[in-house]
Amino acid sequence: MPELRKDPITNRWVIISTDRAKRPTDFVRESVKIRNDGACPFCYGNEGKTPHELLAYGRNGGDSDQPGWRVRVVPNKFPALGIEGDLDRSGEGLFDRMNGVGAHEVIVETPDHNMTLARLEDKAILDVLFAFRDRMLDLKNDKRFRYILIFKNHGDAAGASLDHTHSQLIALPIVPKRVREEVDNARKYYEEKERCIFCDMIRQEREENSRVISETPEFIALAPYAPRFPFEVWILPKVHSSSFENNQTPVFGALARMLKDILTRIETVLDNPAYNLMIHTSPIGEELNQHYHWHIELIPKLTKVAGFEWGSGFYICPTPPEESARFLREAAIPVSKS
Amino acid sequence: MPELRKDPITNRWVIISTDRAKRPTDFVRESVKIRNDGACPFCYGNEGKTPHELLAYGRNGGDSDQPGWRVRVVPNKFPALGIEGDLDRSGEGLFDRMNGVGAHEVIVETPDHNMTLARLEDKAILDVLFAFRDRMLDLKNDKRFRYILIFKNHGDAAGASLDHTHSQLIALPIVPKRVREEVDNARKYYEEKERCIFCDMIRQEREENSRVISETPEFIALAPYAPRFPFEVWILPKVHSSSFENNQTPVFGALARMLKDILTRIETVLDNPAYNLMIHTSPIGEELNQHYHWHIELIPKLTKVAGFEWGSGFYICPTPPEESARFLREAAIPVSKS
Repeated sequence: MPELRKDPITNRWVIISTDRAKRPTDFVRESVKIRNDGACPFCYGNEGKTPHELLAYGRNGGDSDQPGWRVRVVPNKFPALGIEGDLDRSGEGLFDRMNGVGAHEVIVETPDHNMTLARLEDKAILDVLFAFRDRMLDLKNDKRFRYILIFKNHGDAAGASLDHTHSQLIALPIVPKRVREEVDNARKYYEEKERCIFCDMIRQEREENSRVISETPEFIALAPYAPRFPFEVWILPKVHSSSFENNQTPVFGALARMLKDILTRIETVLDNPAYNLMIHTSPIGEELNQHYHWHIELIPKLTKVAGFEWGSGFYICPTPPEESARFLREAAIPVSKS
Repeated sequence: MPELRKDPITNRWVIISTDRAKRPTDFVRESVKIRNDGACPFCYGNEGKTPHELLAYGRNGGDSDQPGWRVRVVPNKFPALGIEGDLDRSGEGLFDRMNGVGAHEVIVETPDHNMTLARLEDKAILDVLFAFRDRMLDLKNDKRFRYILIFKNHGDAAGASLDHTHSQLIALPIVPKRVREEVDNARKYYEEKERCIFCDMIRQEREENSRVISETPEFIALAPYAPRFPFEVWILPKVHSSSFENNQTPVFGALARMLKDILTRIETVLDNPAYNLMIHTSPIGEELNQHYHWHIELIPKLTKVAGFEWGSGFYICPTPPEESARFLREAAIPVSKS
């Protein structure tokens, strides 16, 4: 008998297939292949093919838009939102609109075209996380923005249009629905219980232990109780923390190690699948609070979203999270040297 | 400059790319191809490959599970939910679950393996709509169910696992989040204004006329103001109606013609794309009301949903609905003979 489960953070119900649970090898999918036509705008020597860089690490004083960098951040050449202009809001009968002001940036994670984020060294992943933080802190000075979402699309199937490993950042003039929902529900829970719902969840998951994938002194990675997708993973700080970008350096070091650990497990168990990664942090102006707990959500792209999901907001997950967690926990991965 | 628009029904914001609006030919996609390996369980002679039929039209008294039918409804062989058992609800700390009781059925729309729903004759489409209604009316006798969602996945990319044209039905023990949201927001609007928000939207769209695709005395098809996807289409009854399944026969006749018209436009303009279709009607037990307006949502599968969408609940739509509507409105399609 399948099971219906409710995610306590979003109140979203999912259907978990328990009878014929799908194992990693049951999913028909293609491993992500990195192609190289020599014209990649994210490779050394092609810096002129992107808009002027916003940030680069490792160049030691050299000119901008030249090789020599370790991590490079540039505006997206085809931005979803435009950086210029005021927020012009207007209505028209039932409808509300505003002009599409926002930032859309690309974080090129390494100059090495053939690398994946999972296979970068800890310290290179740390550079990527620092770049996320630095760009967020800079963009938060812009009073037009209410939220900054950092995300990564790995592989065609996950929506990546370039193969050279990169993440993206979009700054928005409104707090997006999905984040607002999480934050509001967490606030309601806190008002009722004086406890963070994520902290309570971490406590329960550690006691039960069936969905924990990996744990360090600072972070926990788990398969959520009511996942939308098979092998969905959340990474959360174990001590309450409401804002990703306000963390101090050692926390980012610990996160780099945990992220490498989890991405390596996913690459190993699922044979380098396409995936999406999203960082959820508190909205701008409400960074420090007791109710919201920043975290990373990781969804390997193994199934197709179809009419049922679009029509209902329900998800059908063919692998119970206890199984996902077991496969990822028991993955034979090299022990991190750090 | 792109534009941010808010859907008044769900309060969902979307980003509309206005600068480099994508035309139908700009989307890289594959036309849906129908393959036939001779073993299709939905073809004449293979009735034994499905579970026993629940409903069939056209057999004129012949035995069940035999050829001769025009439309045939069977339980899904790999159901997402199980039809047997009581609703057993339980909690475990933060988490809520219930056993996965529900119905999951397949509506085989025609015995012709090489047909599409768009190319069926009006009266064959009418049979499909009657089958939707009949199965809904039957399942509503089961007191365990709170919602019945009818949907269709056309093509691999839209999640269809069999090529022979079919729709699906899932009966759920809870009202799904996406429907609850629409119904609750529509109720709030009604309480404030004593008007249905969908009726108001139809009135405004007819006056403005830039997003209307097609209109008959009974139905209107439009590109919604804040679509999630390029070429998204909604079909709505023009006179207020809260329940799909409570309509009388002539309404279904008019709907069959409108559905054929719109699907033909989509097949023509977008070269037979994969798509999802969903019917949104009022939840069981609240069928007759003044605030909710049943409708069909149609989403051609032209873009990939990626990290930004999953992380934010925002959508980036690369074709303004005014453009989608224009292309679909001006499509050269054969005039319906009915």
